[in-house]
Order: sequence, then C-alpha cells, then structure tokens
Amino acid sequence: MLTLHDFLPSGNGYKVRLLLHQLGIPFRLVEHDILRGATRTPEFLALNPNGKVPLLQLQDGTSLAESGAILCYLALDSALWPAERLERALTLQWLFFEQSRHEPYVAVARFIERMAPDSPQRAELAHLRDRGHAALAVMERHLAGRPFFVGGRYGIADIALYAYTHVADEGGYDLSPYPNIRGWLARVAAQPGHVPIDWKPG
Amino acid sequence: MLTLHDFLPSGNGYKVRLLLHQLGIPFRLVEHDILRGATRTPEFLALNPNGKVPLLQLQDGTSLAESGAILCYLALDSALWPAERLERALTLQWLFFEQSRHEPYVAVARFIERMAPDSPQRAELAHLRDRGHAALAVMERHLAGRPFFVGGRYGIADIALYAYTHVADEGGYDLSPYPNIRGWLARVAAQPGHVPIDWKPG
Repeated sequence: MLTLHDFLPSGNGYKVRLLLHQLGIPFRLVEHDILRGATRTPEFLALNPNGKVPLLQLQDGTSLAESGAILCYLALDSALWPAERLERALTLQWLFFEQSRHEPYVAVARFIERMAPDSPQRAELAHLRDRGHAALAVMERHLAGRPFFVGGRYGIADIALYAYTHVADEGGYDLSPYPNIRGWLARVAAQPGHVPIDWKPG
Repeated sequence: MLTLHDFLPSGNGYKVRLLLHQLGIPFRLVEHDILRGATRTPEFLALNPNGKVPLLQLQDGTSLAESGAILCYLALDSALWPAERLERALTLQWLFFEQSRHEPYVAVARFIERMAPDSPQRAELAHLRDRGHAALAVMERHLAGRPFFVGGRYGIADIALYAYTHVADEGGYDLSPYPNIRGWLARVAAQPGHVPIDWKPG
C-alpha cells in the first residue's frame, strides 16, 4: 500500500489526498505537524532531504516528493491526465505556474494569517497579495469561456490550482472580482469523489 | 519551425536553448529585454498572460510557457526523458524542486547582483542565500555516489538544475563546499552538444 506523509491543513498535501480519493487508490496516511518541526527530524529528512510534505512512499519504500510530481505519477493512465502530448505539456505548464507564481503568494499569505499570526513575515503580506492577485488575474483570464484549465475536462491542473485558490480567503484574498474563478471552483467541487481539504481516509 | 521567446541571460531560457541544441531541433529565437519591460507589452501578454520568458511557440502558433513544461514537451521520445515511470516522476520531482526551492533563491540573488544592483531587494540577499544554500545542500547530498540526478544518466533534470547552479557564483554563492555539485557541473558541461548560457542559434 502507498504511504502518504502529510499535514492536513496543507494545500499541497490536499492535492494528493483528493487525487488518491478520486482515483480510488487506498493509502496509509502519516500525519506530521510541520508547525512543531516534525518534517525536520533526522528520521523525516532521511525520507525527504528537502524536509517537506507531501511525501509519497511507494510500496518498495521509494520516496517521491513535490506535489506536482506526485500528481503526475498517480494520474498516469487515468482520465485526469490528458492522453494528448500538447495537453500534457499544458497541464505541466499550469502545475509549474501554480508552484512558482501562485503558491508562494496565495498559500504563504494563508499560512501567515492562519498559522503564524505573530510572524515578522506579516510585514510582507501586502507584497504577497499583490503577486497573488497577479496570479489570480492570469487564471481569471484563462478561464473566460473555458470550464477547466486544459482540454475542456477536469484534470490534475484543476486539482493543483484548486487546492490553495479555494481557501484563498483564509489568506485575506477576496475572490469576488473573479467570477470565472468562482464558477470554476464550484465545478471542481462538484466533481465525483470530491472531498474537503482536511479529509483523510477513515 | 518552433519560435522561442527568450532573454539570453535567463537561466530558465538557457534550459530550453541547451535542450533544443542537444536534440538538434532548429528554432527561431526572438529576444526580449526583460529589463526594459519587453514581456509586459500588450503584444507579449497576448502570447503569455503571465508575462514571462521563455515562451515556446509551436508551428500552429500555440504558446507553451514554464521552462519545466517546455523541457518535458521537447524531450519526449528522446534519451533525455526517462522511459520508466518512476524515473519520469523523479525527473519531475527535481524540476519542481528547482522551480520552488532553488530558482527563487539562487537565480534571484544572481538577478539582483547582476541586473538590479541598486534594487531595494538587496536587503533580502542574506535571506535568499540561506535558502539557496539549503537547496544546494540537498543537491550535494543527492549527488553523493550518483553521476546525474535521475537513473544514472544525463537528462532534463540535470539541464534544469545546471542552468542557475553553474552561474551561482554571480549571485554570490561559493560552491567550494560542494564537491559533488562541482563534479556534476563538469560532467554536464562535458555532454555532447553542450553550449554556454548566452548561446543562440547562429
């Protein structure tokens, strides 16, 4: 059985839990409290030298890190990974966009507001929100006339971008100026097998 | 013919130029001076709403952004993209690691030092270098006993990580404490068809 090392409030971890649930893949969840340094112990660093969740351990013990790589690995051969070469590349484009232009601003603002309210990083919130709104504007424009991010079908690009966008309000982002994003969030939440961010296998 | 929109000092663009050259794929290069806002014009934003280079335009005019996605698209069916599922996932893991844990620190420090010496961002350099050295330490540890990042063979994970690591000194990083990285840099530079960062088709 697969083992997922994760922290339930993590949007990066949620991407993987949501996909595993939608694909019907059973897994064992090991929770780590990142706020108490649980991913900085020698034991965890031996699994992932980068000290981050989510981390997927395969049946043979091999570790796979980085949510985008885990999504691609798991979705292969499913309808959530496109069959066509260009659509695969565009899916990857949105996964990289999420990690480089969206998560560092939308997710980090939420982390500060929700989990580190006394952090000196609060001084960066205005800057983070400017950059986060720039990413949201790119998404809003792309979603004009498109139901999902790639190929007109729900897939892992949607899962990757949904994870932190649907809780952007927790980081102080007001999504009311983004009607296309709000419509898309509702379509993603209506997919079969959808589960909330704090879901874990029962 | 493919068209690559790029800025020669960009390591992200260099990844794509190096791969295109090593694969023997002809392309047309369109240079944009990002320091003068050339990727923020309405014309460029129509190609890439995210306003970034590199941007690959396919023969039918389709735009593909994000260097990691472009590398995967181009390397498919070549020896620089592994044939095996887990090695593909590990390649993606390193591509995402580079974009989220390496480039924001190693590349940005170089950008400040080389292209924006009077920027108020200089105040962040010490913090950037701490995070950049953490990424370099992860690479150094992984390369112990390994000639390349994935599967014992040169591939796009090496190209992605080489681009900003080999010019890390321009951002004030001293690589002398990283002998495994220095050996790997030399192996990458010795690959057939290797070209320097400012290379462009003649």
